Amino acid sequence: MSVEKLKASLRTVPDFPVKGILFWDVTTMFKDAGCLRELEETLYQLYKDKGITKVVGLESRGFVMGPALAVRLGAGFVMARKPGKLPAETLSETYDKEYGHDTIEIHKDAITPDDVVLIHDDLLATGGTVAAAARLVSQFGPKRTLINFIIEIEELEGRKVLPEGVEVTSVIKV
Amino acid sequence: MSVEKLKASLRTVPDFPVKGILFWDVTTMFKDAGCLRELEETLYQLYKDKGITKVVGLESRGFVMGPALAVRLGAGFVMARKPGKLPAETLSETYDKEYGHDTIEIHKDAITPDDVVLIHDDLLATGGTVAAAARLVSQFGPKRTLINFIIEIEELEGRKVLPEGVEVTSVIKV
Repeated sequence: MSVEKLKASLRTVPDFPVKGILFWDVTTMFKDAGCLRELEETLYQLYKDKGITKVVGLESRGFVMGPALAVRLGAGFVMARKPGKLPAETLSETYDKEYGHDTIEIHKDAITPDDVVLIHDDLLATGGTVAAAARLVSQFGPKRTLINFIIEIEELEGRKVLPEGVEVTSVIKV
Repeated sequence: MSVEKLKASLRTVPDFPVKGILFWDVTTMFKDAGCLRELEETLYQLYKDKGITKVVGLESRGFVMGPALAVRLGAGFVMARKPGKLPAETLSETYDKEYGHDTIEIHKDAITPDDVVLIHDDLLATGGTVAAAARLVSQFGPKRTLINFIIEIEELEGRKVLPEGVEVTSVIKV
């Protein structure tokens, strides 16, 4: 199987969640056992030699492949969540959205300065959420941070809002 | 490592999310690389001979270990989500909560009558959500359904509301 086959397993849904947006649906890839395994193997090959000690998944589609990859890498898994979902003390970062703003949180004891962190989400679109996640992770002062997406929508140029000098890799470009 | 060690890695948070609730926090287990791997291995050993073809994870903490287990089992992964989150056509089930009610959805093309389904969530408390998930999965008419939790709070007797004849297994009993 190849990245082209993974790409072919995606479904596009017009006008979701709002009119004018073409939604890239990963559920059709996840439900296929062969695609799921191939995706996990592809992610593992990308990151096996990077010394990653923590994978941070963004709520909630980043929770799907983040932990599977963490298990393969021998790393821990950390949830970056919406406000009020994490029970213990957190660090947080607020960011602007099209209408209003949003906040993302990570438990204060989840990352240490000894960690090499891989931030993972399913999709890079305009990049606002993951840019906030990168700022949030930098509050913990880890050794190094990398960023991964399953899908990158290239025309939206989300990479432009991500911090300079951070290695950003996506499996499927659309 | 043993189940006792996994249990010791959990954190309890009093009065979360509301006063009087003792919250069992799995994030301290997930962030520990050794615990995460041990948990995945324990789940794999429980289900490796059950012929499971789809793992259904409940939003959103069921998304964490569900896919990792699916990869190990050679199964696909299916998200059971809150209303309005899935982009394509869904089947749904509504259930009562302490105040009002809630709905859970699965994509209509996610499960077939040939599937053996494992429903997975992090925690069995009173069981309302997972009972609804079991009714929802039964709408698809799979060959067989099993249910798994990482943690089971025994005194809440959540098993009582789950369908009879379904194999229910939890890794850690508290």
